[in-house]
Amino acid sequence: MAKLVERSVVEQLRPIFEPKTVAVIGASNDLAKFGGRAFFLPLETGYKGTIYPVNPNREQIWGVKAYPSVLDIPDDIDLAVISVVAPLVPEAMEECVKKGVKGAVIITAGFAETGEEGRKLQEEVVRIAHEGGIRFVGPNSNGMWSSRVKLNLLFLSAPMPGPISFISQSGTLGGFLFELATSKGYGFSKFVSSGNQASLNVCDYLEYLAQDEDTRAIVLYIEGIAEGSRFVQVAREVVRRKPIVAYKGGRTAVGSRATLSHTASLAGSDEVFEAACKQAGIIRCYEVIHPFDLAEALACQPVPKGKRVTIIGSGGQCVATADACASLGLELPEFDSDTKRRLKEVLPPHAPVPTNPVDTAAPQDPMTLPRVAEILASLDYIDGIITHAPFVGWDLSPQRIRELLTETEMVTTIPQRYGKPVVCVGVAMRFPGTNLTQDLYRRARIPIYATPEESARAMYGLMRYGEIRRQLGESP
Amino acid sequence: MAKLVERSVVEQLRPIFEPKTVAVIGASNDLAKFGGRAFFLPLETGYKGTIYPVNPNREQIWGVKAYPSVLDIPDDIDLAVISVVAPLVPEAMEECVKKGVKGAVIITAGFAETGEEGRKLQEEVVRIAHEGGIRFVGPNSNGMWSSRVKLNLLFLSAPMPGPISFISQSGTLGGFLFELATSKGYGFSKFVSSGNQASLNVCDYLEYLAQDEDTRAIVLYIEGIAEGSRFVQVAREVVRRKPIVAYKGGRTAVGSRATLSHTASLAGSDEVFEAACKQAGIIRCYEVIHPFDLAEALACQPVPKGKRVTIIGSGGQCVATADACASLGLELPEFDSDTKRRLKEVLPPHAPVPTNPVDTAAPQDPMTLPRVAEILASLDYIDGIITHAPFVGWDLSPQRIRELLTETEMVTTIPQRYGKPVVCVGVAMRFPGTNLTQDLYRRARIPIYATPEESARAMYGLMRYGEIRRQLGESP
Repeated sequence: MAKLVERSVVEQLRPIFEPKTVAVIGASNDLAKFGGRAFFLPLETGYKGTIYPVNPNREQIWGVKAYPSVLDIPDDIDLAVISVVAPLVPEAMEECVKKGVKGAVIITAGFAETGEEGRKLQEEVVRIAHEGGIRFVGPNSNGMWSSRVKLNLLFLSAPMPGPISFISQSGTLGGFLFELATSKGYGFSKFVSSGNQASLNVCDYLEYLAQDEDTRAIVLYIEGIAEGSRFVQVAREVVRRKPIVAYKGGRTAVGSRATLSHTASLAGSDEVFEAACKQAGIIRCYEVIHPFDLAEALACQPVPKGKRVTIIGSGGQCVATADACASLGLELPEFDSDTKRRLKEVLPPHAPVPTNPVDTAAPQDPMTLPRVAEILASLDYIDGIITHAPFVGWDLSPQRIRELLTETEMVTTIPQRYGKPVVCVGVAMRFPGTNLTQDLYRRARIPIYATPEESARAMYGLMRYGEIRRQLGESP
Repeated sequence: MAKLVERSVVEQLRPIFEPKTVAVIGASNDLAKFGGRAFFLPLETGYKGTIYPVNPNREQIWGVKAYPSVLDIPDDIDLAVISVVAPLVPEAMEECVKKGVKGAVIITAGFAETGEEGRKLQEEVVRIAHEGGIRFVGPNSNGMWSSRVKLNLLFLSAPMPGPISFISQSGTLGGFLFELATSKGYGFSKFVSSGNQASLNVCDYLEYLAQDEDTRAIVLYIEGIAEGSRFVQVAREVVRRKPIVAYKGGRTAVGSRATLSHTASLAGSDEVFEAACKQAGIIRCYEVIHPFDLAEALACQPVPKGKRVTIIGSGGQCVATADACASLGLELPEFDSDTKRRLKEVLPPHAPVPTNPVDTAAPQDPMTLPRVAEILASLDYIDGIITHAPFVGWDLSPQRIRELLTETEMVTTIPQRYGKPVVCVGVAMRFPGTNLTQDLYRRARIPIYATPEESARAMYGLMRYGEIRRQLGESP
């Protein structure tokens, strides 16, 4: 353990997230195996380091010279990825120690999650690694992604770089959520399938991510917490710098029963976890995809000073978004009479009497929405805005497109000009031109959500984080 | 009114949903106007009837002879679509009456939703139409879709035929939800943007849909109910034949405030609506897209006899799905010891001890999942199954594909063989072959959902509908 104590968690994790050289122990010519895919996926995403195959039974792997052991590689190795069968993992780890490898990811399953025998094998691997100064991800991990060096060691392809980091205690579900979030347009700095967390656990990853400049919001999928009090302490410090949004599997009796067989972790009482979140300032979600929706807004929008929101949109969308906001405890202040008068001046004549939410009643003039947004952003009793990507109309003349760009910029600069968040709720994407508006919003890092409820949850996330920061005595 | 009394609601609505001839009053050469698009969208979806343009200022519309008035058309007219400016609508309706037009859709806005003057104009139109025997959709409608004749009179393109019908009191949000649901793969029999409901209201549409053979599940977006007791009475009768799933806008104070200016309807107390749903047997949802997810399962899966569900999947997915089911009040019975023994025989050796949910632990054998599903489907204390589309693996040999087809069929025939519903929760779509499995499931009308919570809600919808049917004394 001596070697480990000398280095901080951040120093221990850097070789894992920013390796210049990677050894794949258990490299394979079979794409059906992790040790085969590990030679293609990193290339696809543009990893610039060197990947060395280790396999005693092959001369070459995918045309690259293979080495019988990690010890035979004529280069320093930052990261070892281990995917040999479980009984061979202790020996592989011993060789990594001898070689002076700096960190490892163990993909191999068949450890503590399978029972007593596996637990003993896992303890042996931990002992060898820690005595040799190596911390590792897993075992029973589905891999990781690091945008810093564009290293994709997942079962999937094509992660997108971005400001969210995701630590998942579930491999398959974590991978699926990562993919689903990617398909929603969210980009990631780090993704770690933490597996059995025998060496590195969620607390270690949090410490690393706190100082990671690429990470602006953190998502956790948790089933059980091993070091409860350290978790609260670490998370509380992280939250001063960046938000954490968590989903916990096993909050019901049957769900909890399922976690036991899954990650060998006791889900523990849900009340305890709830209290830990409150104490640490973690924002908790109750559906698996929600944390990503919140993180997307948290990563790119300013933290609001209060919970007072205004909504700009069309009829039913205003109604449903208002309902969703109110259900989440956000306030929709009614406007003062002067503001109502000013809104009436910029709204079309057929629009209803202005109230919060503001129904712009499908205006013909593309400048209506930005004028309304400007009036509302300037109000000292409004902390954030939910708006739609405006209906552009069917007539896309050059003049109209020019107005459109001005319009977009007036809205998308509100966060910088007023320090107030703006999130967008999608509307009728098949209207010609609306895709264009939405693209312009997206380019300006205004998050766009498909439904009123998603946009309301995103605003809730922002306002809840503001509240947490105020409770911690931090400025917004 | 005499003429109206003679015909049932179904007879009054048939010309609207199944017209052989359509007159577009307010036809236009401008695609930016509804009266312009109405000549293209129906063609795109394959409408076989005849569409006549009416416009006194044009000789031709899009190359088709235009008529100064509906009275000049040398053909019987089933449906008139009216999109002239509001003050001209009474005259247009008078001409429709003289012509003997059988039904109408009024797209034009500027009626009761704008205040007292508009309300009077609306009443005049209703008087003229009803005295002349015409019922109509709207005014302030965003149009409709009917799969029976493939008639698309919406602002959007490309609806997909299918078993769901959707009545929306909101135009823009309704259209957007229709589009979002379509993008999720859901098909529609009818969609009506019911607008101000001056002539036809949700009760009338429900009566029609009850006997409509193309409709197997009904979705409602409601802001206010005009005829409360008739609504409960009609809905209760409809629910004996097919399920109704509803979202109500305006359930909070601010949301309710917004409905007033939107559809000129008082949202009314939420408790009253909740009680009405309970009494009528309507399944209520609290997010705008949820009713469609439920309807998709309700339209294609058998109604279960109880609320006892089993889940087949992988680790975290099992945990999250179990949590979601339990939160919705579904039961996950623990298996008897004989079942556990039989499951152990078919599960891979490394799988955890079988419990409900069943973690299949990424089996190599593609027949594992169907064998597990078969054992569970046969249990008399299991009423429905949530499963994943199985991981196929990277090795797609001909033998493997053959197994895959057998596998798929064993699972997809469970609804017919056991009368128990099966819904699917998506997993890692980028795994090669998994798209294939999902396609095979979809083709067999097993609904596939992106997240554990969506699949749990779908199963809740099925089980809640079973409960409602039992309460109404209907067989499942």
